[in-house]
Amino acid sequence: MDTTTLDRWLTDHWDRVFAEWRSLLRFPSISADPAHEADCLGCAAWLRDHLAALGFRAELWPTGRKPAVFAERPGRPGRPTVLFYGHYDVQPVDPVDQWTSPPFEPTLCDGRLRARGAQDNKGQLFYVLKAMEALASAGALDAPVKILLEGEEECGSLGLTASLDAWAERLRADVLMVCDTGTLAPDAGTIIAGLRGIVHLTVRVAGPRHDLHSGVHGGVAPNPAQALAGLVASLHDASGRIAVEGFYDGVRDPAPEERRRAEARPFDAAAYRAATGVDACGGEVGRSPVERAGFRPTLDVNGLHSGYGGDGSKTIIPAEAVAKLTARMVPGQDPARCLALIRRHLQGRAPAGLTVEFPEEAVGGPAMRVDLESRAVRRAAAVLRDLWGREPLFWWEGASIPVLTKLSAVAGAEPILVGVGAEEDSIHAPNESFSIEQFRRGFRYASCFLAALSREG
Amino acid sequence: MDTTTLDRWLTDHWDRVFAEWRSLLRFPSISADPAHEADCLGCAAWLRDHLAALGFRAELWPTGRKPAVFAERPGRPGRPTVLFYGHYDVQPVDPVDQWTSPPFEPTLCDGRLRARGAQDNKGQLFYVLKAMEALASAGALDAPVKILLEGEEECGSLGLTASLDAWAERLRADVLMVCDTGTLAPDAGTIIAGLRGIVHLTVRVAGPRHDLHSGVHGGVAPNPAQALAGLVASLHDASGRIAVEGFYDGVRDPAPEERRRAEARPFDAAAYRAATGVDACGGEVGRSPVERAGFRPTLDVNGLHSGYGGDGSKTIIPAEAVAKLTARMVPGQDPARCLALIRRHLQGRAPAGLTVEFPEEAVGGPAMRVDLESRAVRRAAAVLRDLWGREPLFWWEGASIPVLTKLSAVAGAEPILVGVGAEEDSIHAPNESFSIEQFRRGFRYASCFLAALSREG
Repeated sequence: MDTTTLDRWLTDHWDRVFAEWRSLLRFPSISADPAHEADCLGCAAWLRDHLAALGFRAELWPTGRKPAVFAERPGRPGRPTVLFYGHYDVQPVDPVDQWTSPPFEPTLCDGRLRARGAQDNKGQLFYVLKAMEALASAGALDAPVKILLEGEEECGSLGLTASLDAWAERLRADVLMVCDTGTLAPDAGTIIAGLRGIVHLTVRVAGPRHDLHSGVHGGVAPNPAQALAGLVASLHDASGRIAVEGFYDGVRDPAPEERRRAEARPFDAAAYRAATGVDACGGEVGRSPVERAGFRPTLDVNGLHSGYGGDGSKTIIPAEAVAKLTARMVPGQDPARCLALIRRHLQGRAPAGLTVEFPEEAVGGPAMRVDLESRAVRRAAAVLRDLWGREPLFWWEGASIPVLTKLSAVAGAEPILVGVGAEEDSIHAPNESFSIEQFRRGFRYASCFLAALSREG
Repeated sequence: MDTTTLDRWLTDHWDRVFAEWRSLLRFPSISADPAHEADCLGCAAWLRDHLAALGFRAELWPTGRKPAVFAERPGRPGRPTVLFYGHYDVQPVDPVDQWTSPPFEPTLCDGRLRARGAQDNKGQLFYVLKAMEALASAGALDAPVKILLEGEEECGSLGLTASLDAWAERLRADVLMVCDTGTLAPDAGTIIAGLRGIVHLTVRVAGPRHDLHSGVHGGVAPNPAQALAGLVASLHDASGRIAVEGFYDGVRDPAPEERRRAEARPFDAAAYRAATGVDACGGEVGRSPVERAGFRPTLDVNGLHSGYGGDGSKTIIPAEAVAKLTARMVPGQDPARCLALIRRHLQGRAPAGLTVEFPEEAVGGPAMRVDLESRAVRRAAAVLRDLWGREPLFWWEGASIPVLTKLSAVAGAEPILVGVGAEEDSIHAPNESFSIEQFRRGFRYASCFLAALSREG
């Protein structure tokens, strides 16, 4: 199938495809929130049934947490087997009052479909499924295909990670295809060269049995909110460097070739500001934004909550204060060790009279590096070169897909990460959206890549 | 009326008095929350009607914000005029899920009535009104009485403060009676010798246009939550001293006689821990808890809010972070100047790429010192000595009743602050309550004090 035929297929089937995509987005499959357990299960079952209807042998695989959807379709002998990985869970939706339309009522506006998960990852995984459908309907999907869609990517992939060894035989493949990523430019394909690892930690500073009157007790009782601020502030030094002892052990500067490729496209400060509303001035002083995002670890505050937050004032010493932290790791760092170092740093600074607790923590997974000389990368690069008429870009991404390092190893498959996400998609934020145009582009790439695999001997 | 007669009056009328008190508590008169405007007005009207029914000439006085309830009752010529001050507004109720019963459904349990405002100040003002009723019914309330109940004490008394000059003539009195305070010990009367002043400031650190993905943007975009933590942490040094330049200008150490009286009753560290759940180790190193609460200024964080606060993790760089601060001032400090110094401190440390804003601020009022040699204090001390059979205690309180300094001056009245509040009442916290026994004690004191005034020539 050439791109003209592919485009025509999508146009001919668009009404149905669009309706299916919206059905998928209506599941509030928020994996972090126990209240949405049934919605996650419903979403997984919908995908299983959808894949079965497309001719796959589809199953739900229990993980002890959220089930994974697994599907497979035989291909011609001798063709490389592709394992496609995606996730059906989504981020929480708060602050929900900032959404222009309800997050689980997909709304089309100016060519963009707005919903939680519209891009990450339901939108991107769905164009891959439709690419498989289009090729299969034309008898052009000769590569054997396996599909693994997990339900906990947004909260650490713990169930999947624990299950992978037992599933190794069924997952065996040549190519691990992932589309949960973005593009550096709308006019070029982008191959992800690396991802950061991730750990999560909730820090709780506990003090008085209940909120105290801040007049009566101010200057007498220790203040958990003030103490938490001090603890959080202690995590970085004045140069933006993480001040946790031992945290940078094993971190190395990018190799010259990595740096050359990573910085090939100049960082566009004005575009960054336009897209985000801020200058790219976070993190460590003296390193470029590209280096800071792709080659340096970070320790970020995702939330701070304590005491009163309404209008006016409420004169209390809060009973407790909570911070949500995530750290992103680069190659050379062991996530579990980094988590322990952060805990030790905070515990060692517990202020007098208060206790520092860690009610939640999770080791997501280590950083990942893609072998840019692998067959999978060379295949994808050729497809992207054909589609865009120019060399693909390479991106050392700051984000994480925690399970990929292990999944790639267990499946024995070369990873290839190409997606069409853009900053304006607002993933993880209110009003997440994905344009119809992006969906079409992703569909084209996925179709052409799978077709290329199907033609290989 | 002797105390036996007073006790009998309260017992005989208890069912009705208790029902009236509960009616007063059912108004969610939260002055800080604009959503409760009508509840505040309803509460004020209820008090006006109640006082009218007790034979007072009662009115609502507009302040441009919440109205004040004013009532007066003539007395015998030559008797000192008493101006009783209280407030009908209450603190917000969050965290509302920590209440054992709904905050505006007064619930009697183990001899304590639980509701927001049960003590602060509806419970304490109501025993004074009932003391007036009891004396009047026995023809024993010969002192002219004026009553001023405001609706904004919990959020700065701005409307009342602005109105006082215009009302000076009507408010003129000899004694300013206030019961919005506590007792240092259940077995002794406590006269308040001082109150701290107060200012409020909301600090907002604004960054990205919306929450950003903390993987993609971690180490690139500046993080408002991390920046706010740094700003808040910068407000104190390692010894607990406020690090805002110039903040302590004008603060003096307690005079020897003040220190002797203030420290007359040894601070009970074990009791403090039992009541609050924490050690009294907040504030400045090297000063006693009594000195820290009564003679030293503080700068307290009442709330911190930014980003995600739910279960699990949400990997964002929050778009903004907000802190609620209050400072308590002692004599010698100008609240408006202190507020400006805090603003300047924070503004001067605004982190690169982020903006620091102050969406709300309010100057509550300066600190107050009571003249312990005044006639009003000597009268109250005599009454308390009679009731308890021992010398009253003197308390330099850490809390604030912002309007009192000006009200006392405008009315030309000597302030006398005696209340029966206790730590276990949990004012400003979930499950605020007030015991029937406290109500009876307060009623006795108020009755005897008003009776003593009524007997004076």
